[in-house]
Amino acid sequence: MIFKVTILGSNSAIPTVKRNPTAQLVNHNERLFLVDCAEGTQVQLRKIKIRIQRVSNIFISHLHGDHFFGLIGLISSMHLLGRNKPLNIYGPAQLEDILKIQLDASETKLNYELIFHPLNMEDELVIYEDEKLTISTIPMNHSIPTVGFMFREKLGKRRLIRGKIAELNIPVQNILPIKNGADFIDENGVLHKNSEVTENPLVPRTYAFCSDTSYYEPTIPIVAGADLLYHETTFMHDMAKAAADKLHSTTIEAGTIAKKANVKKLIIGHFSMRYDILDHLLDETKTVFSNTELAKDGKVFEL
Amino acid sequence: MIFKVTILGSNSAIPTVKRNPTAQLVNHNERLFLVDCAEGTQVQLRKIKIRIQRVSNIFISHLHGDHFFGLIGLISSMHLLGRNKPLNIYGPAQLEDILKIQLDASETKLNYELIFHPLNMEDELVIYEDEKLTISTIPMNHSIPTVGFMFREKLGKRRLIRGKIAELNIPVQNILPIKNGADFIDENGVLHKNSEVTENPLVPRTYAFCSDTSYYEPTIPIVAGADLLYHETTFMHDMAKAAADKLHSTTIEAGTIAKKANVKKLIIGHFSMRYDILDHLLDETKTVFSNTELAKDGKVFEL
Repeated sequence: MIFKVTILGSNSAIPTVKRNPTAQLVNHNERLFLVDCAEGTQVQLRKIKIRIQRVSNIFISHLHGDHFFGLIGLISSMHLLGRNKPLNIYGPAQLEDILKIQLDASETKLNYELIFHPLNMEDELVIYEDEKLTISTIPMNHSIPTVGFMFREKLGKRRLIRGKIAELNIPVQNILPIKNGADFIDENGVLHKNSEVTENPLVPRTYAFCSDTSYYEPTIPIVAGADLLYHETTFMHDMAKAAADKLHSTTIEAGTIAKKANVKKLIIGHFSMRYDILDHLLDETKTVFSNTELAKDGKVFEL
Repeated sequence: MIFKVTILGSNSAIPTVKRNPTAQLVNHNERLFLVDCAEGTQVQLRKIKIRIQRVSNIFISHLHGDHFFGLIGLISSMHLLGRNKPLNIYGPAQLEDILKIQLDASETKLNYELIFHPLNMEDELVIYEDEKLTISTIPMNHSIPTVGFMFREKLGKRRLIRGKIAELNIPVQNILPIKNGADFIDENGVLHKNSEVTENPLVPRTYAFCSDTSYYEPTIPIVAGADLLYHETTFMHDMAKAAADKLHSTTIEAGTIAKKANVKKLIIGHFSMRYDILDHLLDETKTVFSNTELAKDGKVFEL
C-alpha cells in the first residue's frame, strides 16, 4: 500500500525562486493529505502533476504565513475549477475567519462544502480517521500555538499466504472471514487452521511531521519509533541561541529528537534563507543521527 | 526619464506553472509602483531581480483573489527582511481588515508603517501624487467594485537647448530660473529671450491599467490618447456572451476601447486559462487595433 511524502516547500519564512516555504503532500493508499500550504503551494502541486481536486483534507500546523498563505488561493482555485465534493480543513480556530473574510470580500459562494475543523492546539488528539489511517496532533513548542501531525497506519487484517487460494481452492466468499481469523474447511472436509493459511499483517507505518518548534522533548514519546520523521531544522547549531529565542530548532536538536525517539529516518527542512548550500546542515545533523536526508522541493520519500 | 511597465502575471483566475495571475510593476523615474498582487508576485519580483523593499506604493484594483492573494505574503516578507520605511497600500476598504486579521493571527507587529488608503471605487480621483506623476482611479464595470489606475506624468519644465550652457557660458545658478521661463543676460549684457535658449518640455506620457472590466465605454474619455493601455482580454470574441455575463472583455472589445480612445499602444492580458496558445487572441484583437501586444510574464513595455 502506497505511503509517501512529497516535499512541496523546504524553506522557512519567505518563498524564493528555488525554495518554497512549508507544504507537504502525504499520499496514503492514494488518499492525498496536504500538510501546510504556503504561498505558491498550488503551483507546486501542478509542477508534480497532482490534480488539486484529489486533495480533500488539509492540515495547517499554525498561523505563521509561511505555513498557510497559499490556502485561500488553493480553496479559490478548487472552486473556479468546478469542485463539488467537500473539502476538510483542520487548523487553528482563527483560520476559519481568515478564510471567510476573504471569500466574503470577493463575494464568492463556494460551489462545494468547506468543512472547517478547529483544532485543540494543546493536546495530542486523533483528528482524522479512515479505515486505514489515523492522523493525530503533536503539540509543538513555538511562538504561537502550533501542532505537528502524526500519520499512523492501522493494523491491517491477517494476510492470506500467497498461493493458498489456488492450492486449497478457497472460494471468494471465504476470503474475508479467513482474513478476519476464521479457519478454513476445504472441499474434502479437511480443516486448515487460520495460522496455516495466513500470515501476520504488515507492520503499520508512521509518519511524523514536526514544524515549527524549538527543541522539545515531550515530542519524543509521541513520535517514538516512527518510520519517518520530518523535523524542522531552521539553523546550524552555532545559531542555537537564536533558534531558542525564536522557538526554532537546530541540526543537532533535530538529530537528537530523532535519535532519542529511535525513528528510522529523519528529514530536515524549514531552512533559514541564510543558507544557500544545505549540505552543511545535513552533515551537522548526521553527526547525531546518520539516516538523515534534506527536504528539497519536489523530493519524494517512500515509507 | 524612465517609464516602463513589467508584466508579472498575465493569467486570469488561477496561477499556473507558466502564467501567474495579475500583477504589474510600473517604474517611473526609478520609483516602483506595484499594481495588483496575485499569489506568487513576490517570487515574480525576485525572478526579475527587483528588491521588494524598493516598492513603497501598491495599488489593488479589486478583491478577487487573482488580484490580491499575494499581498499578505509580500507585506510579511518585507517585514521579515527588515523593512523600516513606510509602505502605502491603496485598495478597497475591506482589504485593510483582511490584512489585519492575518497579521493578528500570526502575532506579527510590523517593524514598518503600513499606511492604508481606502479607495473610493466609484469616481475618477487622484489617489497619488509626487513631483513627476499622478495616479488616479478609473472606475471599471465588474462583478464587484473595481477600479483601474491611470499613471499621468506631469508637464515638466522647459528644457535648455543642448549646447547653450557652453555657448553662452550660463552660470549654474541661472539654469533653474531659465527652466522656469526667465530670459538670460550674458556676460556681455546681451539679452537672450527664454524661447531662444529653451525648448518645450517633453510631452507627458500616460499609462492606463484597466482590469477587470466588461466592455465599458465610460473608460474611453479617461484613457483617451494614452501612450500605453493595458486592457483585460479574458476571452476570444466567440465568448462575448460569457464575457458579458462574467463582466469581462473580449479581444474585439479591448481593441475597440483602444481604437475609440485613440491610444498609441494596447497590451492585452488576463487570459482565460482555456487558452494555451495566445496568438489567436492577439490576431483577433489586431483586426480592430493593430498596435497590440500580448502581456507575458516578465515582458517589459517602455513608454
